Amino acid sequence: MRIDIITVLPELLQGFLQESIIGRAQKRGLADIHLHNLRDWAVRRDRRIDDYPYGGSAGMVMQCEPIDRCITSLKAERRYDEVIFTSPDGQQFSQPMANQLSLAENIIILCGHYKGIDHRIREHLITREISIGDYVLTGGELAAAVIADAVVRVIPGAIGDEQSALSDSFQDDLLAPPVYTRPADYKGWRVPDILLSGHEARIREWELQQAMERTARLRPDLIKK
Amino acid sequence: MRIDIITVLPELLQGFLQESIIGRAQKRGLADIHLHNLRDWAVRRDRRIDDYPYGGSAGMVMQCEPIDRCITSLKAERRYDEVIFTSPDGQQFSQPMANQLSLAENIIILCGHYKGIDHRIREHLITREISIGDYVLTGGELAAAVIADAVVRVIPGAIGDEQSALSDSFQDDLLAPPVYTRPADYKGWRVPDILLSGHEARIREWELQQAMERTARLRPDLIKK
Repeated sequence: MRIDIITVLPELLQGFLQESIIGRAQKRGLADIHLHNLRDWAVRRDRRIDDYPYGGSAGMVMQCEPIDRCITSLKAERRYDEVIFTSPDGQQFSQPMANQLSLAENIIILCGHYKGIDHRIREHLITREISIGDYVLTGGELAAAVIADAVVRVIPGAIGDEQSALSDSFQDDLLAPPVYTRPADYKGWRVPDILLSGHEARIREWELQQAMERTARLRPDLIKK
Repeated sequence: MRIDIITVLPELLQGFLQESIIGRAQKRGLADIHLHNLRDWAVRRDRRIDDYPYGGSAGMVMQCEPIDRCITSLKAERRYDEVIFTSPDGQQFSQPMANQLSLAENIIILCGHYKGIDHRIREHLITREISIGDYVLTGGELAAAVIADAVVRVIPGAIGDEQSALSDSFQDDLLAPPVYTRPADYKGWRVPDILLSGHEARIREWELQQAMERTARLRPDLIKK
């Protein structure tokens, strides 16, 4: 799949694209992520793409034209399944949404910055607004990175051990059970005996029971769904 | 405030620390963010800090000792308000939590990776587990960046225009009203007349009404709180 990220701060995302799953998925040809510097589409000579808001409120607003020009040029090259805008008032991002987006062929993610983008872009060009949570970030760049990471990692082949992704939290509406590794005793902190027992069936049963107990205690809302 | 981020992928966060609000807040002396490569605390000669999980499940688990050594060495230098672990089964990150954390003096954020960290670390060293949303990421790095960004930007002086932060979504349990900037007419897409009217009081009233209408339509749960 191809993801085009439109941003005023491509430098912020550079490291993210080269490292970890995203870097590996690109090398394997599973994902193709492109950063577009919105300033390259500025219409003003000083490369600014923001201006004061109408109505006199505080903050700066990203203008229609550079965004429209950038999106239009991308759309001239291929068909996009979604043009996503990351915004705190968008639909809540979730694992099912990540799974669904991983089936798309081409998506655009527009990162807002400053006080926001001209609302006309949201009305006319954006097909989906997504929020990664109920908090305000400086810009949409981290939100775009979060969406890209969650989506790319569920593409088959992106992570080495597929069984590992399937047993993640949320894929079965249960939180993951606790995990332990060597040494069995660290400063007197001990691994639960059952995990050292070698009884495969009992271990699986213990893990399920732990997952259910943790979910009931920490996230009862996941069970009621 | 000081934020120490412990990670196996410091390169992923490098760009984020230099750009935007975080970069500016550091230059202004408002925030001091340090990245620690967990591999520097590895006990094995190959610098690996993960091992197979007990019980035979899939994925790799981060070991106790490197994490314990790194956190202990930081704690020897200063008192920490919180040792945070980012995890999908943590407490949901929210704007009130960001506001509260911005009052801390020193915090540690430990980024999980692979299948997770040895559960004994969570029991004995972590004071707070935070989830940025109901989805699974490759590692805790993006979650740590999200937390750091949301926290640092509410430190007084971090963003240029403080009025702008106060009128953000969530600070008053209302989504932000739509914003517009020049031109007033772009390809026939027009800015609402009221914003061009110059009637300050009516504009403020329109904005409040838009914020309430958007909140009621998109996030009725915020109003019921």
